[in-house]
Parts: sequence; C-alpha cells; structure tokens
Amino acid sequence: MDFRRWDDIREDLTALYRDLHAHPELSFQEHRTAAEVARRLGELGLEVTTGVGGTGVVGVLRNGAGPTVLLRADFDALPVEERTGLDYASTERATASDGSDVPVMHACGHDMHVTCLIGALDLLVSARASWSGTVLAVFQPAEEIGAGARAMLDDGLLERFPRPDVCLGQHVFPFQSGFVGMMRGPSMSAADSLKITMFGRGGHGSQPQNAVDPVVMASATVLRLQTVVSREVAGDDTAVVTVGSIRAGTQGNIIPDRAELLVNVRSFDERVRERVLAAIRRIVRAEAVASGADREPEFEQLNRFPLLVNDPDATDRTASALRAALGEHAVLDLPPAMASEDVGLFGTEAGVPTCYWFFGGTDPGRFQKALAEDSVARSIPANHSPHFAPEIEPTLTTGVKALVTATLTWLT
Amino acid sequence: MDFRRWDDIREDLTALYRDLHAHPELSFQEHRTAAEVARRLGELGLEVTTGVGGTGVVGVLRNGAGPTVLLRADFDALPVEERTGLDYASTERATASDGSDVPVMHACGHDMHVTCLIGALDLLVSARASWSGTVLAVFQPAEEIGAGARAMLDDGLLERFPRPDVCLGQHVFPFQSGFVGMMRGPSMSAADSLKITMFGRGGHGSQPQNAVDPVVMASATVLRLQTVVSREVAGDDTAVVTVGSIRAGTQGNIIPDRAELLVNVRSFDERVRERVLAAIRRIVRAEAVASGADREPEFEQLNRFPLLVNDPDATDRTASALRAALGEHAVLDLPPAMASEDVGLFGTEAGVPTCYWFFGGTDPGRFQKALAEDSVARSIPANHSPHFAPEIEPTLTTGVKALVTATLTWLT
Amino acid sequence: MDFRRWDDIREDLTALYRDLHAHPELSFQEHRTAAEVARRLGELGLEVTTGVGGTGVVGVLRNGAGPTVLLRADFDALPVEERTGLDYASTERATASDGSDVPVMHACGHDMHVTCLIGALDLLVSARASWSGTVLAVFQPAEEIGAGARAMLDDGLLERFPRPDVCLGQHVFPFQSGFVGMMRGPSMSAADSLKITMFGRGGHGSQPQNAVDPVVMASATVLRLQTVVSREVAGDDTAVVTVGSIRAGTQGNIIPDRAELLVNVRSFDERVRERVLAAIRRIVRAEAVASGADREPEFEQLNRFPLLVNDPDATDRTASALRAALGEHAVLDLPPAMASEDVGLFGTEAGVPTCYWFFGGTDPGRFQKALAEDSVARSIPANHSPHFAPEIEPTLTTGVKALVTATLTWLT
Amino acid sequence: MDFRRWDDIREDLTALYRDLHAHPELSFQEHRTAAEVARRLGELGLEVTTGVGGTGVVGVLRNGAGPTVLLRADFDALPVEERTGLDYASTERATASDGSDVPVMHACGHDMHVTCLIGALDLLVSARASWSGTVLAVFQPAEEIGAGARAMLDDGLLERFPRPDVCLGQHVFPFQSGFVGMMRGPSMSAADSLKITMFGRGGHGSQPQNAVDPVVMASATVLRLQTVVSREVAGDDTAVVTVGSIRAGTQGNIIPDRAELLVNVRSFDERVRERVLAAIRRIVRAEAVASGADREPEFEQLNRFPLLVNDPDATDRTASALRAALGEHAVLDLPPAMASEDVGLFGTEAGVPTCYWFFGGTDPGRFQKALAEDSVARSIPANHSPHFAPEIEPTLTTGVKALVTATLTWLT
Repeated sequence: MDFRRWDDIREDLTALYRDLHAHPELSFQEHRTAAEVARRLGELGLEVTTGVGGTGVVGVLRNGAGPTVLLRADFDALPVEERTGLDYASTERATASDGSDVPVMHACGHDMHVTCLIGALDLLVSARASWSGTVLAVFQPAEEIGAGARAMLDDGLLERFPRPDVCLGQHVFPFQSGFVGMMRGPSMSAADSLKITMFGRGGHGSQPQNAVDPVVMASATVLRLQTVVSREVAGDDTAVVTVGSIRAGTQGNIIPDRAELLVNVRSFDERVRERVLAAIRRIVRAEAVASGADREPEFEQLNRFPLLVNDPDATDRTASALRAALGEHAVLDLPPAMASEDVGLFGTEAGVPTCYWFFGGTDPGRFQKALAEDSVARSIPANHSPHFAPEIEPTLTTGVKALVTATLTWLT
Repeated sequence: MDFRRWDDIREDLTALYRDLHAHPELSFQEHRTAAEVARRLGELGLEVTTGVGGTGVVGVLRNGAGPTVLLRADFDALPVEERTGLDYASTERATASDGSDVPVMHACGHDMHVTCLIGALDLLVSARASWSGTVLAVFQPAEEIGAGARAMLDDGLLERFPRPDVCLGQHVFPFQSGFVGMMRGPSMSAADSLKITMFGRGGHGSQPQNAVDPVVMASATVLRLQTVVSREVAGDDTAVVTVGSIRAGTQGNIIPDRAELLVNVRSFDERVRERVLAAIRRIVRAEAVASGADREPEFEQLNRFPLLVNDPDATDRTASALRAALGEHAVLDLPPAMASEDVGLFGTEAGVPTCYWFFGGTDPGRFQKALAEDSVARSIPANHSPHFAPEIEPTLTTGVKALVTATLTWLT
Repeated sequence: MDFRRWDDIREDLTALYRDLHAHPELSFQEHRTAAEVARRLGELGLEVTTGVGGTGVVGVLRNGAGPTVLLRADFDALPVEERTGLDYASTERATASDGSDVPVMHACGHDMHVTCLIGALDLLVSARASWSGTVLAVFQPAEEIGAGARAMLDDGLLERFPRPDVCLGQHVFPFQSGFVGMMRGPSMSAADSLKITMFGRGGHGSQPQNAVDPVVMASATVLRLQTVVSREVAGDDTAVVTVGSIRAGTQGNIIPDRAELLVNVRSFDERVRERVLAAIRRIVRAEAVASGADREPEFEQLNRFPLLVNDPDATDRTASALRAALGEHAVLDLPPAMASEDVGLFGTEAGVPTCYWFFGGTDPGRFQKALAEDSVARSIPANHSPHFAPEIEPTLTTGVKALVTATLTWLT
Repeated sequence: MDFRRWDDIREDLTALYRDLHAHPELSFQEHRTAAEVARRLGELGLEVTTGVGGTGVVGVLRNGAGPTVLLRADFDALPVEERTGLDYASTERATASDGSDVPVMHACGHDMHVTCLIGALDLLVSARASWSGTVLAVFQPAEEIGAGARAMLDDGLLERFPRPDVCLGQHVFPFQSGFVGMMRGPSMSAADSLKITMFGRGGHGSQPQNAVDPVVMASATVLRLQTVVSREVAGDDTAVVTVGSIRAGTQGNIIPDRAELLVNVRSFDERVRERVLAAIRRIVRAEAVASGADREPEFEQLNRFPLLVNDPDATDRTASALRAALGEHAVLDLPPAMASEDVGLFGTEAGVPTCYWFFGGTDPGRFQKALAEDSVARSIPANHSPHFAPEIEPTLTTGVKALVTATLTWLT
C-alpha cells in the first residue's frame, strides 16, 4: 500500500479532528457529527445511509468481487467537563437523558476514531485499483451507554447492507502513540450497569426511631458489596464491582426516604458474571431487611456490554499485517482489558470473526518518562478523564495506517 | 382578658394564614412575607422597622410604664415539595443558596406562628386599656438554618429597640390542637449541622486499583459514625447523630473524586456535644486514612442551634396563666424535645428568662384515633413532612390566646 | 442503736473479708463460701438452711412480733484474673460452665456484701432487746449470671421461710467510701444476655468463593448492631447494646464454619427492650442472608436481669434513717444506673417494696483527687475490672451500719 | 523402568500409610514419624541423618557419577479433628504452640507424600543397576506453618549433603486419582500469615462511653479489609485476603481490652503482595484511630510461604516422562493454584530448577460423578477439610510411579 496520499489529506483530517473534538455530542444526540460524517462519505463517493439505529451512519464502498469488511468507528462523547486546556477544547453543554444540563467532552477519543476511519476510507477510495471487495463503514452512536451497536443491529444493519465477513475496529488508549496493541481471545470485559433504589422511611433527623434511614442502609450495602469480589470471586477469576455513585437526601436534619446506587460490574466469564449479579441482588435485599425497610429495593439494568472476544486467527492475521506495515516492535501483545465495548455485537450477531485493537495516544516522550518514573497510571490521563487528550500525531497517522492495513489484509 | 374581638378578626387572619401558606419563602428570602407583616403592624399602629438582620421585621407597641415583653415569631419556610393536597397548598419554587431550583413549603408551621402573633398584637392593641408596658414583636427570618436570631442580634436588636425583660414564643407541633405543652429547664436540643467533604481520587470504574474510591470511604464513614452514639455516648445521656445526605458520583462506571456528607447532631449537654463532634472528626479523618486518601477531609459548620433552656420560674408562671385561660387539662408538661430552635439566643444574649412552648396543630379527632391505635408517630405528619398541615382551628385560636395570655402575665 | 459492739468484731470481720476475697467461687459453685456463711450464722444463733436454690443459704433471726425484713447479700465471683496486687489477692481458678479453666476473682465486691451482712446480723443479735420482728438473711448465689434469685424463689424461698414485708440490700460501688447512694423509682437497668451463633461454610482460606465466611458475616453484624442504638432508640430513651465477645476460627488460612457473638442489652423500659431485641434478631438474620448462609443463626438467652424499681416511699424512709445515722452529707441521690441486678425479683415476686442502695468503696483521698482531675471514669477501677478492690475501711463499717440502720427503720 | 517390585512392597506401604494416617503429628513435633522414616531409610541402605532443621530427616542414596536429584516429602499434620469415619482415622491430640490441647489429623495428605517417597526410594534402590547419580531424599517438617524448608536450609542442608541439580516433589490434591497435574511458571501462590492485635480499653458492658470497644474496632477492620481485594487489587491481578479468625472477649457484659485477628494473604506477584500488606497495615492502624484507641495495633508475621515457580524446561521434561509412564491423558496442564508451599525455597536457595506437581487423590467414580453434577467444589473434600481422605489406590501407586519416573528423567 502506498501511503503518499496521506500527506495530502492529513492537514484536512487534523482540522476535522479538532472540529469534532470541539463539538462533542452525547449518546444518540450526535446530529452534527453524523451530518459531517455523511457529508464526507458522500464526497468520497460512498453510498450513504443516515439515521441507522437513531443517529448512526453507514457508508458502503463497493469495489468488485470479494469479501465484505465491516469497519466500525463509534462517535458519541461523555458528560465530562474538559480540563485539557487545549485551544480546541470543548465548552459544549447538553441536556442529559435525566433532563440535567451537563458539560460534554470527547473524553474517550471517539473523535479520533471517526477521523481515522474517514482518513482510511479516503485512502481506500484512492487505492481502489489495488484491492477488490466491499467496505462497510459503520459510524456508530451511543457506544458509551452500550446501546448503539444494539440499535443499529435492531434497525437492520445486517439485512439492509452487505453482510460482513469480518468486523474490524480500533480504540485509542493511553499508551505510546505510534504503537498498536492486540488482544487475543477474550479481550474486553463484559459490563453491566445497574441502578439500585433502596427505600427507607423519611423523618426528622432528630427522630431516627420513627424513620428507616436509607443513608445507613445504602452505606452498609456499599460496604457489603465489597465482599462480592473479596469473598465470592476466586482469586484467579476476574471481576470488578464499582459503586460509582451514591445519592440520598438533601439536608443534614431530614432523613430521606430513599437512596440510589449506580453500580458497574465487569467480568470475563458468564458464570462469574451471573454469580456476581446474584450476589449483588442478595446483598441489597438483605441489607434492606436489616434496616427494617418496608419496601423491596428496585433494580434497573441501565446498560449491558457484552464480552468482546477477538477471534484468534483473525487477530494473528491482522497482527502480522500490522507488524509488516508499522514495524515489528510497534505491535504489542496486550492482556485482556477491564474496559468494555459493544463492538463485539456486530461479529457475534453476524456469526463472523471480530478483530479489535488499541492504538496508543500518548506523546512518546511523555510516555517514556512516565515509564521510567513508574508513574504511568498516575501521570498519563486515561480515557474518561477530563484531561484525556490524544497527541494528534503520530496517533492519527498510526490509526489511519492500521485501519487501511488491516482492511487490505482481507481484501487483497 | 376579653377575647370577643377575636371573633371579629378571625376570618381575616384565617385568610392571612392561607395566603402565607400558599406563598412560602426560603430563609433570608422572606421579602413578601416581611412586607405583609410590616403593612399589618403599621395598620395596628406599631412602630415598624424592616430589614433587621436581613429580612427581619420589628414592631414596637408602647403602652406606658412597665416591663418589655419580647414576642417572637419566625417566618421562613423549607425546600420541601408540598403534598398536602390543600386548596391553599404551595406550588412555589425558589433558588436555594447552592443555586439549585427547589420547591418551597411552610412545612414547619411558621406561617401559623406569624398569623398568631399578628392576631395577638391586634388583641393587645384593642385591649391596651387593660395593661401597661411594652411589647416588642420580633418577626425573625431564617430560623430553619439557625441564622436569623443571630443576624437580628448582630444587627442591634437589643440596642436599637426597647430591651426585653422576658422572651416568649411558641411553635406549632403535631399533637392535639387546642392544647399547649410546656417544657421546663433544658427544653430543646442544641443542634450542629456539618458539611463534610471527603476526597478520593477519581478513575475509571474498572480500574479501582488506580483510584481511591470515595463512595466506599464515605459509606464506611457513615457506618462508623453510628458508633458515636452507640459507643461514646452514655446510655443515660442524650445525643442523635444523623447523616441526612450522602452524595458522590454521577455514573456507575466512573469512580468520583469526592463524597459529601451532611451531618446533623443533637445534644442536651455541652460536654456530650463536644465529645460527639470530636468523635465525628476523628472518625472521618481516620476513615480517609483507611482508604488511602491523599487529601484531608474538609469540615464546614453549616449552622448551629443553641440549647434552649426554659427558665423554670417564667415557665411555671406562664403555665399557670395558660391553665387559667385555656383550661386545666389543656396545658401539658412535656419532656425535653429533640428539636432545635434559635429562639433561645434572644434571652441568653439579653440575660433574661425565656419561656417557649408548643401548641398542638392536629385535628383532635384524628389525634385521638391515632392515640387509640398507637400510631401517632406513623400516622400524624410531623414538622418538615411534605404532608405537614396544621388544622387551622382550633389551632389558630389557641395560639392567639396563648400568646396574649402569656404576655399579659408580665404586663398586668 | 449503739454501734460499740462493732469495735469488738471488726477485726474478725476484716479477716473474713480477706479470706472471702482470696477464695472467690463462680456462680453456683459457692460451696466454700456457703459453708463459711452457714457456720457463722449458726454461731450467731440463727435458724440456718443451706442448699436453697442450689448453693444459697438462708438464716432466720426471729425476735418477737413485728414485720419481716429480707436482707440480701449475693456471694458469687467472676471469671476475671485479679491484678490488684493485694496480699490477699485471689489466685484461684475454676472450671467454667463451658468446661474451660478460668481465673476467678471477687471483682464485683460480693465478698464485701457477705461480710457486711454477717456483721449486721451480729449487731442485730447483740441488740435484740432494742427491736422486734424477724430478719430473713438471704445469701444468694449466682447473681452474676442473673440466675440466683430466680433459683431461690423457685426453691420455695417465699413459702419455706417467713414472708418478707420489705426487701433490703446494698452493693459496693466505685464512689467515695463512707457514702451511700440512693436511687428512687426505676433504678437499675434490665439486662438481657444473648449468645448468637452464625453459620457460614468452612473452607480453605485461599478459596473464599467455595466458602461462606462467618468472620465477615459476624463482623458486618457487629457493625450493623451499632445502628440499633443509633437509629432505633430515641435520643431520650435509654438502651445499651454491647457485643462483649466475638469468636470465630483458629487459623488464618482456614475459613471457619461458624462465629459466636455474646451480646448484652441494657434498657429501662419494656417497649424499648422489646424493640431492641427484635432489631437484633432482624439484623442478625438479615446479615446471614446477605452472606449467603445456608443455615439460620441461632439465638440463646443466657440470662435476663429484671428492671430494678426502688419503691419511692421505702426509699425515702430508708434515706432519712441513713442520713440520721451516717450524716446528712453522706447520703447521695443517684440517678438510675446502667448496671443490673436480680435483687428486684424478691420484692416483685413477694409483692412488697424493695429498697436497694449503693455504698462507696473507693479511698476518699483517691476519689477526691480523681474528682479534682476529672478522671474518675479513667482512674478509679470499676466493678468487673481486674483492679477492682474496695478499701476495706471505712467501706466495711459503712456497709454494716447502713444495713443495721435500714433494718431497724422497719423493726422499731 | 520395571515396576514389578512394586507389587511386592505395596501391601507393606499401604500399612505404612494407614499407620502414619492414624498417628499424625503437629509441625516440628513429628518425632514418631521421623523415627519411622529414619528406620526405613536405614533398612534401604541410605545414609540417614535425623534432626535436620528440628525434626527433618535426610537420606542420601549414592549410585555413582551423575547429577543429584532432591526429592522432597513434607510430613507434618494439622490441628483438625478428623471426621472421615475411616477405620484408620486419627484420634490423636497434641499441645499446640499456644499451649492449647488440639486434635490432630493428616488433613493435607503428607502421610501419602511420605509413603510415596519411601516406596520410590525402595524401587530406586532395587533398580540401581539401571541409573547413576545421587538421590537426596528430604523429609521435611513443618510445611504447614511455612517454617520447615527454611529450618532445614538454615541447618545446612545445602552444605552438609550433596548439592542438588534439580528439586522435585509432589502433593496429593482432590482431583481424580491416577492423574497428575503440571503447572508451568508461577504455580503456587505466595502466602503471608499475620497475627494482628488491636487494643481497646476494657470496661463494663453497660458503660461503653468509658471504654474503647475492640469488638467494634476489629469488626470494622474486617469489613474494611474486604476493600483491599475489591478496590486495591486490579481485576486481572490475583490476591486473596482472608481473616480466618477473630477473637475478643469472653462475656457479653464485659468490654474486653483487645481483639486478635489472624489474616492470611495469597498473591502471585511481589508488587501486588507488597501493596496488599501495606494496605492491611494502613487499614488496621486507621481503624484503631477511628475507634479512639490509646495504643497502636501490633503485627506479627506468623509465617510466610514463597511464591512457587516451576521451571518451564524442567516441567516440560518431567511432563513428557510422566506422559510416557502414566499415559498421555493422565497428565493434566493445571493453572496456577491459590495454595502455598515452601518447597520452592530449596531450588531458589540452591539456584537450581524446581518441578513440583499435583497427583489426584479422589476415587475416580466419585470424581466423575461430581463432575457430571457440577458439584466438585461442594462434594469433594479438599485439603484441610476434616473429611479429606485420599483413596489409597490408585493414589499410592500413581505417586510412587510419578516420583520414580521423574527422578530417572534426570539420572539416566
């Protein structure tokens, strides 16, 4: 593959990245992003369909006989207030699904994913003489809430468009820019998000004997939930249970009537997952009883990310190609990640292999310094941090090359 | 005292009560209420001063030689959403001190206190031939946040107006309407409200090892705070420690960087109070250390209500007069209450006796039924409940008569 | 009353006290003590019955017409290892009811109670010309486990011996020797002792996922039990819930299959008591469920002490007599005590008044110094401490005089 | 290798196994066992040294030039009460190191290890014509407390006897008898056992305000320790923290002055281990502060097992030989085990490879049934269970053959 065309378009794509970064949109609200994507796909000559699964955009690049490769980029942002200090930092706000006004930031790099895929499509269009087959470009909404892949599939993605033979995708991650990282087999954790409401009985703060205190109830529950991982998951199994939010009451002298917990569960094994979820329910219910609650707690599944399994053969094949294109040492073998993604649904539902990789986003000098100081976890802002800001280069170039290279592995 | 005039004004005052109830205002925002009070005091011929300690109103009724009796009514409301279903229920909202938009309700009966005092002043004006001395009517803002009495005193209440010889006041309470209840000696608890902020280190919900989880930290703290009362306060001492609010995080999969607790402490003894407050600080700090926090917790005293001590002699004298006026059985001896009030500051600061009593607000039939079913605590809405709604009569009549009678005890 | 005889017998009784102190016996094992008591009662000419309610001893001193006064002294000791350093300190050991070998100590002063009652009986015998009626001397076993009074009553105490008209008794306490303290009305708390066994499922310490960990279960229960007092007992009610013992496991690397809690509950009101006991059961059961226990916890009531109510009239009458005999300032009015006693059962069962008082056991100089330093609670060893050691004088003299004086109040 | 001799000695060794099983001895008390071992080694013609590292026995079998293979069998038992119901079950009791009288049981199969090694030595002696080199038979005391290997090394094992070129050993485990299981690389967890003493201030159960309650302190600590694994160990790292024992107090109504925790920590990585141990110390100290303790907690390291790392090459070589001897399917690849062993110290200290494997002890029919019912963890008694009882055959035969085969891999 000849990457000279890249030099011609890099500046334009850098501008696109900065523009997307400055204008992040929440899950299922990606109207501006979708319009920009559709416009550019149209300019590249793809068949473009918008509104797939809400705000999703699908582009089809047909180029003769051959397999169909699904390339996926997610494009939603997060309710995080950007503190990167970049000149293209976001100052956007939006209305969250609960009606509240929140800041918005591309704190997970989906702007980079979109830019890389647009760039890769441009190169593939330019080089169409050198390959044959079909590229199915999937710009997915609402990855952050685990709902976008499901929505696109439910909206007929596999029926309305060429059926893929393999699903490829990538995610920017806080390791050294210029490198890609491959995972083989079970690669990214399943994730379940639950909203748990526990009911007490409100009252005056000075009369606890006439109330059932949901603050104590919820606090005892949070402590007890720590035992799920410490006592019910084997040391050599993997699970994480995080109560990311606890909310009850508004004043010190009023005992509120309920408390709300938001719980996130990560797992790599369906049996472990089921045991953990059952233990959470058991503990929550028992702690309500311990407090003398009059009413059963309520559980709401907010979202569910599937386990991502990278097909070993597809991964080996992709890794070989990336090694040839990026250099032997630029391709890392990574262990499974405790992060979650809904990208796996496409391949699972289509019954075809998935290969999904990470590409580094951290300035090489900064990363090497942090490594030397053993401070990576502390000093390199990770995804979802208000300070998360991929170095544009060589991140963008690497992401574009990786996508093109991986695609051509299947189409030449 | 001849209460026939009462029949002439009762209808008007009932309308005033309904109007005040429908238009509650938060602490230090009582502009409409203050204007209405000032207007009526002016009509009654009192010397009126507004803006005392923010929104407070002082009326002076001079009637010859004799002692000065301070009569106090508080007039602020609460950020509670009214659910009484009354035709004069509040639908007001206001901006709280933290900038949030909140519902407002007279959920503690201060509208009744204002109405009774206006009525009592009208009767005292009408009957001025039968007594001599001075009545100092104090309409106090911001009782709910323990700040109004302090503000009025700091604004020169004792210097700018006739200095009281005794301080009287009353509060409507969820016992049988038509009755008053007297407490002798230490009568209403001291109350301290604290805001505690505990600092963790935020991170991704799947990477707790790189974070310090403030949800766990705060939950462990709440449980440990239960030991203050259970282990550090003697069985025969009195203290209540309530964590009325716990707040941390917004999503299940993000570990937040801090948690906030609102704590309310009730006590009847300065040594117990100090031990409890010291224990809270010790536990909060130690639990932060246990979690590996990088930063010390922060403590902010939101408000502080003093212990209310009813002067025994003044109380006995008032009780006798009330028995004569309302009937022997209508005056109850009550034990100290776990509620708090800043009314005691006036007498303490002036160095004169205080007598503060409760008057019932619950429909007699309903109250007797609840008594018979042993369900008072469960079935009668207490102060601060969204269902708190005094029966207008005989509550209003009783409150007016009690105020007039008690005042004349000192002025005839 | 002429107390000159006291000078003749004091030395002998001091020797008796030292001997009893050096030879303490556990509840229902007081064979040596009972034999010595019986021998001395016989020498004084009383009708003596041994083996009443196990090891109890009853002496009857008939002296003509008149009322019958029951005088009660308890005589069992505690499984505490004495650390007083006294030359007559106990080095005894005994087999506890659970089969274990334990140290034994008169750490609650029952040796003093016995000595005082023997001394008082001697004086009453010597002075029989000056009074008439009957003295029923009750030497009770097993007060420490709340079982001895019940056992003597069940063994026919009220039927086999003269029926009392009043029940008197006294207890040495860590206030100034030479003083007595009177309580009126509800005076000593009810106490319930429970043994709670919680069942987990044992396993290897490295495989918690295959076990149900009773150490975590019991620990969570202990923390949750703190909420009974902090949240379910009103601030102005009185209750204490103490988990005095927690036991589970023998090694770090084996998860045991059960945990045992010993819980003690103090209360002054039957409704509070019932609510507390119900809350304990509710919490223990719910925490077992939270842990996923296969088996319900078990509850065993180890003992139960009744509330002690001092008859107001009998107390006033006794207090007046003691003031006359010991000095106006030597008789203190004490608030109710959080300690418990089964002495009240005698009067309750007989339907006659009880008057039970405390007498000081601490060296006056030491006590005044501690008072001045505000260190009484910390520096004066209390009952049940391994350092508890009443100063023999003036404690013994005061106890004897108090008993004789109180008795004669009813018999002259 | 010709195993026909095995048929001649099997009956005798079965009798030896039964005898050892019936006469278990605690760590460093293995006098009877050591004597029996020494006697038999002497009969086989080995050079025998007793008292190595306390009760250890070393036998040297020299057979010409060649490498030295260290074969290790541990021989101590556990303070567990046997409930197998076997006719050769132990009824032994012994005095534990804390002076208590405890039951003793070979609940970890060391009796089987000894028997297999004696059997293997017999076969090696018989077949000395077919191999050359030296066998160093190490019968190690006190494996259960992680002290025996250390003691033998400190007593000059590597200096006083032929220096090994490889260290081999095996452990019976609750999988199917007839099978062996190999682990490669980090194979058995490091284990640290700590005794933690937390100090409160004792007092009467009714006066918690004058005490510092160590039961609450220790219980809060146990709950907080659950957060070490749930919050401070990454989901994909491995650690187990078990509080196997909590002990405080003897009675419900006495607040004790201290509590004791026995904690066991498993880890596979020195950084994780250090973080976990530091977190435990931090939490214990902070919880003491939270309780207002006057005295710092005390930490005592009871024992420490090193991480066992099986040399990959040595393991592959041994596995191949075992496959040839026992059948292709009888050799399993096992994942790392959460169990711990001090066997690794020999190789680590000598700087030579270690290969340590498991051999199954469960009756094949029973195991297959449990597998089919998915009840292995629940229905097959594991090591340290009072029901742990290896099926003698084919366990014994497999263990002997495995040892001989592995040894000859290095000596032929």
